[in-house]
Amino acid sequence: MAVEQAHGTEACRKVDGGITRVFQLLGKRWTGPIVAVLVEQPAYFADLRRAVPGISERMLSDRLTELGAAGLLVREVDEGPPLRVTYRLTESGAALGPALKELGKWAETHLPEGGPCTEPTGC
Amino acid sequence: MAVEQAHGTEACRKVDGGITRVFQLLGKRWTGPIVAVLVEQPAYFADLRRAVPGISERMLSDRLTELGAAGLLVREVDEGPPLRVTYRLTESGAALGPALKELGKWAETHLPEGGPCTEPTGC
Repeated sequence: MAVEQAHGTEACRKVDGGITRVFQLLGKRWTGPIVAVLVEQPAYFADLRRAVPGISERMLSDRLTELGAAGLLVREVDEGPPLRVTYRLTESGAALGPALKELGKWAETHLPEGGPCTEPTGC
Repeated sequence: MAVEQAHGTEACRKVDGGITRVFQLLGKRWTGPIVAVLVEQPAYFADLRRAVPGISERMLSDRLTELGAAGLLVREVDEGPPLRVTYRLTESGAALGPALKELGKWAETHLPEGGPCTEPTGC
């Protein structure tokens, strides 16, 4: 029973809905790195900014707001003094850990440091 | 021999280099979905454009050029007539398959269709 691949099938392929949705989040510069840092442990805003070289306060703030809206992280306010806000992944956010780890391992093998790169800085 | 977590460790965390590099590619809108389509099988430009709803010709062309420069895909020209170009993942590109599958599965569970979404279209 050979399976025939008609051209019609090829022409009508559509990208998977889950892939579309996950890259509406991760297909923005910085979102993946931010989640990868928080997978290790919760962090303050300033720690996150230091951990993700090149990100601006505004971009970090926008990405954190999006991740919160998607249910991936929560803000925890410590009234202090000093008042500090901790960002912590939810169970959903933490569940991204294995896939991110796999992406990082893939890059170690297939995107060597100092290889071709589309960014002017950071590599 | 307890391991102490000094605040210094926390403050000095840096995002993993592999994660930084992989999201220089995948942290652009469309790149992940394009690779996910090509993991299934090679495709013509027009098929890719149909498979990734919302992408423009220009954006598709730019993303394909970047993926080629990073060694993830090759162009194969069939002189025809009609002349057609097929885009095919290299071994490096195909090796992203398992991680992308895991991201898609994660989204099925944690980013339900019709949930909160930062995009005006496509969900």
